[in-house]
Amino acid sequence: MTLQSVGIVGLGLIGGSMGLALRGKGILVRGLDVSPAHRQIARNLGIVDEAVETLTELTRQVDVVILAVPVKAILQLLPQVARAAPSDALILDTGSVKAPVSRMMATLPGSGRCAGGHPIAGRERSGPDAADADLFRGRAFVLTPHVGSEPRFVERARQLVETLGALPILLDASRHDDIVSRTSHLPQLLSTALALSLVPADLQLSGSGLKDMTRLARSDPGMWRDILVLNRANVVPAIRQYITLLEGFLQSIELGEASKIEARLRDAAHACHCVTSGATS
Amino acid sequence: MTLQSVGIVGLGLIGGSMGLALRGKGILVRGLDVSPAHRQIARNLGIVDEAVETLTELTRQVDVVILAVPVKAILQLLPQVARAAPSDALILDTGSVKAPVSRMMATLPGSGRCAGGHPIAGRERSGPDAADADLFRGRAFVLTPHVGSEPRFVERARQLVETLGALPILLDASRHDDIVSRTSHLPQLLSTALALSLVPADLQLSGSGLKDMTRLARSDPGMWRDILVLNRANVVPAIRQYITLLEGFLQSIELGEASKIEARLRDAAHACHCVTSGATS
Repeated sequence: MTLQSVGIVGLGLIGGSMGLALRGKGILVRGLDVSPAHRQIARNLGIVDEAVETLTELTRQVDVVILAVPVKAILQLLPQVARAAPSDALILDTGSVKAPVSRMMATLPGSGRCAGGHPIAGRERSGPDAADADLFRGRAFVLTPHVGSEPRFVERARQLVETLGALPILLDASRHDDIVSRTSHLPQLLSTALALSLVPADLQLSGSGLKDMTRLARSDPGMWRDILVLNRANVVPAIRQYITLLEGFLQSIELGEASKIEARLRDAAHACHCVTSGATS
Repeated sequence: MTLQSVGIVGLGLIGGSMGLALRGKGILVRGLDVSPAHRQIARNLGIVDEAVETLTELTRQVDVVILAVPVKAILQLLPQVARAAPSDALILDTGSVKAPVSRMMATLPGSGRCAGGHPIAGRERSGPDAADADLFRGRAFVLTPHVGSEPRFVERARQLVETLGALPILLDASRHDDIVSRTSHLPQLLSTALALSLVPADLQLSGSGLKDMTRLARSDPGMWRDILVLNRANVVPAIRQYITLLEGFLQSIELGEASKIEARLRDAAHACHCVTSGATS
């Protein structure tokens, strides 16, 4: 099938960027946001064809309903969305933690049309004014169907991801949550703890390295609170492993084990040689 | 006095950028580097008026001798530089750890002409081909005179810093080493340990946050080995304090203490609000 119309719940950076990208491909986009300001901006910037206020209006004759809100709101909204959405519409979310979403999707009426998703894209700014039709271009977009997701809806999700210019990566929800605990949730915590370890006088000597390392610490506290708690089964062992690594460094530095320290620095330089900001860059 | 001629030991990113900036102000620049390739690049790019091979040639009739090599090489070279340099030439280094340099400077013949320095500027690329006349513009440049540094030489160091377009910040060497243990050496270690905590499959889901957080881990292992060991008196307590912070997070996440986690995330976002990549930016 050809995608013809999409309903997006949440017109922030992710939902807004999807709206722009999909409208750019000739797809009709309807958007819902609790914020009247966001709805207005979305209309002004051409993110949506229509900005609506209810799920009933949003889901009328759409091929896909996208939940582009923080993960806790996704869990709260999913049952209502499942009731409102047409039985032949894909229900896809974009949350940062996938196992709880997957578990809930499996229990919903019409669970076969539901699948989890997570675009590995973002930026410091948020809200619809930060929306960018190219946000997903060349980036990984994880799809985490649950055991009951019907193949035709998974195929529709893949088609949506490709329409956004992103690279669909199919993963088990638990596997996703394990990986992002190291690639996203741990870095967020490290940046946060680094910011907390600074004293005001330190800032006079801040260079570009410190700026890079504290950028994530500026992210939305409420969103990250929920991510860290919802993914604690993976985040806790990731922190534990990291503390063990740091303690190893601590000991080597205390003992002045220069060659051991250099070997670890060399291993790290090698390990992160392939870290890029997107799967294709 | 007006600065007329400067000798630079080490034509890498820092020494090379100084050469470009100082020559741009009409100052004669002589450069020394053990690498023939670096000397050739420095000549080709106009970093130096003359590239020489011995300290005797370098220090002939100069107002300032700058040691722009890694901190361990600074400690090895200082006694020879003190012997070779004119008695009325400022000897300034640019190393990342200042207390050991300061201690050695105080014991050298003609110690009154010696002062420590540390430009808070850098980039991922190194070597003379990365040199940039504007590297120091608007950035902090710490000066750490030792107790015996003569005021006229400290004044000359300040003048040099201003000629580079940087902001001279006068600090005690130990205070400097304490601050950079949190603003530079700890971030370096955190980035390194993060790179080490990744497994290969993680890289398919790497986003811009992970890229930011692992950028420092690519830095030169040999240089960082020396910095971490030379500043271990400050680095060790900085790591300890950081591990304590992480353990606090670990516990709150394990217990699902959502409001406590959010409060810490909020404190961090506030704390790093003033972290910039330079004192004026």
